[in-house]
Amino acid sequence: MSKKILLINGPNLNLLGKREVRVYGAKTLPDLEEEVSAVAKQHGVELTCKQSNHEGHIIDWVHEAGEVYDGIIMNPGAFTHYSYAIRDAIAGVHVPCIEVHISNVHKREEFRHTSVLAPVCAGQIVGLGFHGYQLALFALLHILEGE
Amino acid sequence: MSKKILLINGPNLNLLGKREVRVYGAKTLPDLEEEVSAVAKQHGVELTCKQSNHEGHIIDWVHEAGEVYDGIIMNPGAFTHYSYAIRDAIAGVHVPCIEVHISNVHKREEFRHTSVLAPVCAGQIVGLGFHGYQLALFALLHILEGE
Amino acid sequence: MSKKILLINGPNLNLLGKREVRVYGAKTLPDLEEEVSAVAKQHGVELTCKQSNHEGHIIDWVHEAGEVYDGIIMNPGAFTHYSYAIRDAIAGVHVPCIEVHISNVHKREEFRHTSVLAPVCAGQIVGLGFHGYQLALFALLHILEGE
Amino acid sequence: MSKKILLINGPNLNLLGKREVRVYGAKTLPDLEEEVSAVAKQHGVELTCKQSNHEGHIIDWVHEAGEVYDGIIMNPGAFTHYSYAIRDAIAGVHVPCIEVHISNVHKREEFRHTSVLAPVCAGQIVGLGFHGYQLALFALLHILEGE
Amino acid sequence: MSKKILLINGPNLNLLGKREVRVYGAKTLPDLEEEVSAVAKQHGVELTCKQSNHEGHIIDWVHEAGEVYDGIIMNPGAFTHYSYAIRDAIAGVHVPCIEVHISNVHKREEFRHTSVLAPVCAGQIVGLGFHGYQLALFALLHILEGE
Amino acid sequence: MSKKILLINGPNLNLLGKREVRVYGAKTLPDLEEEVSAVAKQHGVELTCKQSNHEGHIIDWVHEAGEVYDGIIMNPGAFTHYSYAIRDAIAGVHVPCIEVHISNVHKREEFRHTSVLAPVCAGQIVGLGFHGYQLALFALLHILEGE
Amino acid sequence: MSKKILLINGPNLNLLGKREVRVYGAKTLPDLEEEVSAVAKQHGVELTCKQSNHEGHIIDWVHEAGEVYDGIIMNPGAFTHYSYAIRDAIAGVHVPCIEVHISNVHKREEFRHTSVLAPVCAGQIVGLGFHGYQLALFALLHILEGE
Amino acid sequence: MSKKILLINGPNLNLLGKREVRVYGAKTLPDLEEEVSAVAKQHGVELTCKQSNHEGHIIDWVHEAGEVYDGIIMNPGAFTHYSYAIRDAIAGVHVPCIEVHISNVHKREEFRHTSVLAPVCAGQIVGLGFHGYQLALFALLHILEGE
Amino acid sequence: MSKKILLINGPNLNLLGKREVRVYGAKTLPDLEEEVSAVAKQHGVELTCKQSNHEGHIIDWVHEAGEVYDGIIMNPGAFTHYSYAIRDAIAGVHVPCIEVHISNVHKREEFRHTSVLAPVCAGQIVGLGFHGYQLALFALLHILEGE
Amino acid sequence: MSKKILLINGPNLNLLGKREVRVYGAKTLPDLEEEVSAVAKQHGVELTCKQSNHEGHIIDWVHEAGEVYDGIIMNPGAFTHYSYAIRDAIAGVHVPCIEVHISNVHKREEFRHTSVLAPVCAGQIVGLGFHGYQLALFALLHILEGE
Amino acid sequence: MSKKILLINGPNLNLLGKREVRVYGAKTLPDLEEEVSAVAKQHGVELTCKQSNHEGHIIDWVHEAGEVYDGIIMNPGAFTHYSYAIRDAIAGVHVPCIEVHISNVHKREEFRHTSVLAPVCAGQIVGLGFHGYQLALFALLHILEGE
Amino acid sequence: MSKKILLINGPNLNLLGKREVRVYGAKTLPDLEEEVSAVAKQHGVELTCKQSNHEGHIIDWVHEAGEVYDGIIMNPGAFTHYSYAIRDAIAGVHVPCIEVHISNVHKREEFRHTSVLAPVCAGQIVGLGFHGYQLALFALLHILEGE
Repeated sequence: MSKKILLINGPNLNLLGKREVRVYGAKTLPDLEEEVSAVAKQHGVELTCKQSNHEGHIIDWVHEAGEVYDGIIMNPGAFTHYSYAIRDAIAGVHVPCIEVHISNVHKREEFRHTSVLAPVCAGQIVGLGFHGYQLALFALLHILEGE
Repeated sequence: MSKKILLINGPNLNLLGKREVRVYGAKTLPDLEEEVSAVAKQHGVELTCKQSNHEGHIIDWVHEAGEVYDGIIMNPGAFTHYSYAIRDAIAGVHVPCIEVHISNVHKREEFRHTSVLAPVCAGQIVGLGFHGYQLALFALLHILEGE
Repeated sequence: MSKKILLINGPNLNLLGKREVRVYGAKTLPDLEEEVSAVAKQHGVELTCKQSNHEGHIIDWVHEAGEVYDGIIMNPGAFTHYSYAIRDAIAGVHVPCIEVHISNVHKREEFRHTSVLAPVCAGQIVGLGFHGYQLALFALLHILEGE
Repeated sequence: MSKKILLINGPNLNLLGKREVRVYGAKTLPDLEEEVSAVAKQHGVELTCKQSNHEGHIIDWVHEAGEVYDGIIMNPGAFTHYSYAIRDAIAGVHVPCIEVHISNVHKREEFRHTSVLAPVCAGQIVGLGFHGYQLALFALLHILEGE
Repeated sequence: MSKKILLINGPNLNLLGKREVRVYGAKTLPDLEEEVSAVAKQHGVELTCKQSNHEGHIIDWVHEAGEVYDGIIMNPGAFTHYSYAIRDAIAGVHVPCIEVHISNVHKREEFRHTSVLAPVCAGQIVGLGFHGYQLALFALLHILEGE
Repeated sequence: MSKKILLINGPNLNLLGKREVRVYGAKTLPDLEEEVSAVAKQHGVELTCKQSNHEGHIIDWVHEAGEVYDGIIMNPGAFTHYSYAIRDAIAGVHVPCIEVHISNVHKREEFRHTSVLAPVCAGQIVGLGFHGYQLALFALLHILEGE
Repeated sequence: MSKKILLINGPNLNLLGKREVRVYGAKTLPDLEEEVSAVAKQHGVELTCKQSNHEGHIIDWVHEAGEVYDGIIMNPGAFTHYSYAIRDAIAGVHVPCIEVHISNVHKREEFRHTSVLAPVCAGQIVGLGFHGYQLALFALLHILEGE
Repeated sequence: MSKKILLINGPNLNLLGKREVRVYGAKTLPDLEEEVSAVAKQHGVELTCKQSNHEGHIIDWVHEAGEVYDGIIMNPGAFTHYSYAIRDAIAGVHVPCIEVHISNVHKREEFRHTSVLAPVCAGQIVGLGFHGYQLALFALLHILEGE
Repeated sequence: MSKKILLINGPNLNLLGKREVRVYGAKTLPDLEEEVSAVAKQHGVELTCKQSNHEGHIIDWVHEAGEVYDGIIMNPGAFTHYSYAIRDAIAGVHVPCIEVHISNVHKREEFRHTSVLAPVCAGQIVGLGFHGYQLALFALLHILEGE
Repeated sequence: MSKKILLINGPNLNLLGKREVRVYGAKTLPDLEEEVSAVAKQHGVELTCKQSNHEGHIIDWVHEAGEVYDGIIMNPGAFTHYSYAIRDAIAGVHVPCIEVHISNVHKREEFRHTSVLAPVCAGQIVGLGFHGYQLALFALLHILEGE
Repeated sequence: MSKKILLINGPNLNLLGKREVRVYGAKTLPDLEEEVSAVAKQHGVELTCKQSNHEGHIIDWVHEAGEVYDGIIMNPGAFTHYSYAIRDAIAGVHVPCIEVHISNVHKREEFRHTSVLAPVCAGQIVGLGFHGYQLALFALLHILEGE
Repeated sequence: MSKKILLINGPNLNLLGKREVRVYGAKTLPDLEEEVSAVAKQHGVELTCKQSNHEGHIIDWVHEAGEVYDGIIMNPGAFTHYSYAIRDAIAGVHVPCIEVHISNVHKREEFRHTSVLAPVCAGQIVGLGFHGYQLALFALLHILEGE
């Protein structure tokens, strides 16, 4: 049976391609979602893509993922640095979550160097652009295949 | 005339009984709400129960409580540790609020040791499980009885 | 052509005139919005006023402002101190934002002394009461006039 | 068989009713002990009340409680903030301890915000006046009744 | 009777137009003083302008302002960050002081993010260029008009 | 009627003249007590001298002083740096206390630079040797004379 | 022409399969190197594998990589947390480096949460076991193919 | 031969009796200087009184004191907390200096709790009002008499 | 002539064998004292064993040791981490003191990593169980033999 | 069968007897090794002695010890304070390690007060000179004898 | 044409030869100025020497140097550690400044380890006595010669 | 007899001219060594030049320098910021060492602002490019000539 994976993009990622192009590149969020979905399809994965600027929605989605998905790929945007509520959500469900950051957060402002989510995620992929989402997909598949 | 009290459970408390059973026990949120409501009824208190994963809803409810309730019992979940906005809401209304935590937060991760809400609450009850909600109810009644 | 400016008031500012009158004075949010709108009109500015207790709404509005407004006046309330997500929203749009605080936050609790938004705003006006919003309006006009 | 509970009040609590009346109210320590003992009696609990300004006595009593009592209610006064020796005593005995503070310590000086004892107590009740001791009694009974 | 206001520019502001033009723009201190004086005149305010690189002079002037002026506009330059002596001077006189910074100090070095003067000023205007001085003038007038 | 003053020397001050002579000089505690008593007598003050290495005794004595003495001179020794319990005792009684240190604690180890007692004492005299006790006596007399 | 990539494993990684099996799994370093080499071969990459417990050797190899390799995959082991010298080496050569950690360092001791190398690497892959090395290989290829 | 002592009052002490009367009392600087001079005269001491808001003048005077005075009494005002230059001046001359503070600085803002001068002074007298200056005089005499 | 050595066990060590057996093992304090005394006897040392939960007693005993013993072996229990008063006692007597900890305190809670006593002791033996006391005895003998 | 123990001396210990004689005494490293070897021999222990200024060598030797020795005595010199790589090596092998310091590091510079190795060692012996190595040998034997 | 260089000595350097001879040596400020002037002359440099204990004068001189000198040699004395105003002055002029310290500040008190000026100077020469000024002169010449 | 001086360049300085040319310039390490050697020769100094990326080699060389050289010039590269082992080496030999940094480390990343070596060096020369090495040579000669 095919795997179901939830891709959650957090606050301001709807601005991709419009915002801070120097940092994030010129492609848009739909471009990104399409790209990752295509790869997912090739690997027989059913990928659902969501984005929100509301912390509460992301928590609701993580809970939902705990019921009906096999794994989560999440770019939590700035919530990375203070949303202990999302942290508790991830810790509270029984599906693995991979944290992704498009830019290398360790090259940027001090506050971006700390992730309050990382300790409850399965893994973290940082600084590898849109490609990082694909790697997260491979990582999830690898984990789900029980290796 | 009977007292009206608002019980607010914050983010991830809808997972009770499903999430981290080792920490929070096996009973669910409806179990909890039922239990506390029963005790409330015995004491002639009209208890309304709400839960949200959205900080904004909790703020809205606190404002509403300031208008139509006599007191608040709140388990703010992870918002305890960073929601200065909920703090301002509690400080801005004229009804007492009791902060409740099911687990003993002081035994857990460092970040759980600080409550940004405690300084504006009437009191705090920590680590006493579901029973803590009942104690909070007694505490509110005691305060409202002007003792 | 007339300028369009968006005025965003953050969490708990709907309590103005009800809450902590000693700190914020007795006028209400509608009073404030009316006052600033009147001044805006005199200067040929079309002012839209919004308030929310939800971080997510404020982020959505900032994004919208990036499309259809010429500038933002924002009193972020307690989000000032921790919402890196709003910070990223402001940094991600191409319209200037002026941060306003009614009270002198530097006279109050330690946590109010730091603004995570200030580094991405055009400027900051602190402690000058409702009048601060008018000054912010003048400041925006001055910036938009290219001086 | 009736439960035996030890109530320990720490340094300066013998000044109750004399000291800082604005903070602690006008009732004295004997008033307090009488009040709690009466409630205890109603619940078939044998309550023993002790007070000392000497850290060593409190440690000795905790050890004794480990032998002949079923639970401890302790208001450690200022020892809360630095007595790692009392902490080790509580951790070293096999009876539950509830930490009580009459005033809301989180509204007061910075140093009162940290309890070195909380991590080894069963729970903590803060800011609810003399009534907090009764709640602690209920909490202990609840724990001893095995939930 | 017309108001008397004292404008104090602190250390290195005599370099305006010569120094760090990228940060402060190309206009000089006399340009600035002329501009603000013209606006002051229009509002019937008698503005006196002073500049010094000596902390002691600024303290002396604040004392003098306490006797013969109705308000102070001050850009304290780098003294902002360490001159507790100027802070005591402002706190010691009975006229309102508005702190002005030409550049957005929150975008610059860490040490510029803290003002030891802000807690004793009436308000603060940051990052709005020379125009900030005019806004400070309006703010002072507004305060002095008793609104 | 003559004043009654209590002189409390804290831990290790019984070693005076034996211990760390380079720091504290060669005179003993009885020498010190005799010296100060003689001066007290000249000023019509009844001076009682106590010393203990037990924090609890010092707290007990402060409480007693609150009942039967007009003022306290205290050299708290190392308790200066951590005994919040003695702090609460001093804050809880209604007689002024002068804190005395024989050596200049600010020239010594880092931990000696902070006094947790100073905020609740009337004043502090540091580094002036045995003579500091006489000055404390004069200070207390001055305070008690209502000047 | 085929790409040449250097895989550097830092201190103690020669213990893989022997050491802390609970954390790192039972496979050995040769197992790991074989696995990654096989994948590399499939993608036409010439992979060279080195391991050292000597910081100096790793620096030498990074310099060498700057001359004759197209990219570096590095698991710096504990050097991650303090070797500013390796950081300077990576910053000083013109080939991209991907930092890999087998375990989720953010779940472990505090000191493992900071990487002094991350700010000069292209990206970071954390917590994904041996599979993380393969992902690093894909990431490097993606970068070298010019995105 | 009579002793010569220099009394230096630092920034804002010329405001005594005008400024923050609640903190410092209603007497003026001339009142203070007169009072201390009278006492000095009684003890055969020639007292010279100076005040400045300029750090540089105070340094110059300390140097001068090193040549022609036997001791210094200094209330450094806010310079207490940051003037390492005055510290070096005191350390550089061979006459004892007593640091005096009128109010109990340890009861006030955090920044007033640290004196950068104390480690190079002979002693410190805090919180004893104008009377503290007399005690400082006695202390200096005691030191100069070689006891 | 035979050496006299004082063995002081601090707070909660009377619980040995009862308390936290997983950390401290199952032998009791009398077992320990007997064991060390036997070894002492073999080496011609007269060993006196004391235990107290009272900081004051420990200080008194250190003073006494300064008079009539040749050395001290001390396990200060939790006083290790905050009793500057015991520190001053040890520094004030002229006999060497060896600090012993049964468990490896560096593997345990953060607060146990700092000893305020270590800087005034001759040496420290950590983590070697009851055997550590024997090693401390050998160490003292070695020191006393002038090597 | 006789035990095999590895004694590792870290950086600069080859300077013993030449360097900082006031701190470390006049005996040389060969003197030390000879002394400890003699004692080892008496106890039927085969002691191998190594010294290096290279962190990498020490890691290599710890790995080797994990294969062919029964225990390690290590004086890590300054590596004590920052070599997380040596820490991982010790944690990665299955033989006990005793950390030894000749001088009392707690009496010296701040940076010497922290050992990053202590949490993974069996025990620590500090400040007891060359004799500390013998005690470490006894400690290892005691551990290996299964007590 | 000959170069013009300004040598500025800051607070307390007029005490050279009188003050803390153990730290600074026995030569006086005129000795120093003469020495450096002689060397300057040999290299065709016109050296002007100034000293002040007033921060304001030093700022004024730096501004002047920006107009009529080719470079600055400055020993800022204790202003090194807190004068952000001098920092802004140096950053605001277009001539290179070399910071000199006679003693090795890194061997002295903690507060002397940080220079707020260093980031805006061309270079820093520390601990090399009077000779450091000559080296600073050579450094400035080297810079001005465009190498 | 001619002086012998050892020049040690630390990690990554072999990349000079290749690495970060914007920071360090285009000349290579051999260029640098040649330049300094030429100047040394002119002053009758025998200069030996070494470079290593291995901390252990640098320690070995410092020890060697203690035997056969008169002084050391060292650019420790990134070891500056954490190699307490090199610090102990320098402190352990009896020849003066001058620390040199090519770039102004105080203008760069935070971690480069602290030198753990500076407190044991004779002096420090920062930010003066290759020329700094020559100045270090002059400084050593000056020291060796006995001031």
